[in-house]
Amino acid sequence: MNNQRCRQLQKLLHKEVPLSNRIGMTVDSYDGDRLALHAELEPNINIHGVAFGGSIYSLCALSGWGLLILRLEEKDLNPRIMITSAEISYQKPVMQNIKASSRLFAEHEFQNFIDQYKKKSRARIKIPVEVRLDNNELAARFTGEYIAFARAQ
Amino acid sequence: MNNQRCRQLQKLLHKEVPLSNRIGMTVDSYDGDRLALHAELEPNINIHGVAFGGSIYSLCALSGWGLLILRLEEKDLNPRIMITSAEISYQKPVMQNIKASSRLFAEHEFQNFIDQYKKKSRARIKIPVEVRLDNNELAARFTGEYIAFARAQ
Repeated sequence: MNNQRCRQLQKLLHKEVPLSNRIGMTVDSYDGDRLALHAELEPNINIHGVAFGGSIYSLCALSGWGLLILRLEEKDLNPRIMITSAEISYQKPVMQNIKASSRLFAEHEFQNFIDQYKKKSRARIKIPVEVRLDNNELAARFTGEYIAFARAQ
Repeated sequence: MNNQRCRQLQKLLHKEVPLSNRIGMTVDSYDGDRLALHAELEPNINIHGVAFGGSIYSLCALSGWGLLILRLEEKDLNPRIMITSAEISYQKPVMQNIKASSRLFAEHEFQNFIDQYKKKSRARIKIPVEVRLDNNELAARFTGEYIAFARAQ
């Protein structure tokens, strides 16, 4: 079930943002709470053998966006979603495939976001994303603010 | 003279970060104060016909980095430079080639950065970058913090 949703999300992200395909992005898992994506190191590597900061940011932005798509789907909602702002800090160089995982700050925030969206047809929410190395060390921390708005009929 | 420096910088960025080439990045101009880059829309477009936020971020990160390389060159310095954190806000969708321009916040900050680097062999500085549309409207505002450190001998 979740494998199928992951495949669908990956197909959607590759279609919506072709660059996600070019950076080697794959949707790995979703357990109803946390969404995990990765991007291969090779297309994102710089001359020093580490992942480019812009690629790490891009994967994080896709991860927050993907989580929001999945969580909204579960409420039978399919708004258009755009990122409006973000911040990122880099703690460790990434010398392996880049792994990003996103998870809501708090369920009640998501409920407020849904209530707001249903009332106003647009709402904003911040989504945190972490990039961790294989040894679980934190490599980057990202928070993106997204706006959801009703699609033109 | 500046045209030659622009070509050299473009070559360096394409070599250091191969993704910069894949997003169609070109160094446009440098007047000793402001560095202007652009990326073609096509490799960065999403399904809605606008530039992906991750591509805009990547171009901004390269723009801040490139400016720092040029300004340091003018002091005969060639440290390794990495981005340590950044924030970005998106004001308008970009439906054309993405144009980013970077410029120091203040010359005295740069002088402090140089003094610090000479003393400690490492120093940090924040660089602002703007993305403007052809009609000069602000489309995105980015600030990146970079660290410069002496290369291993």
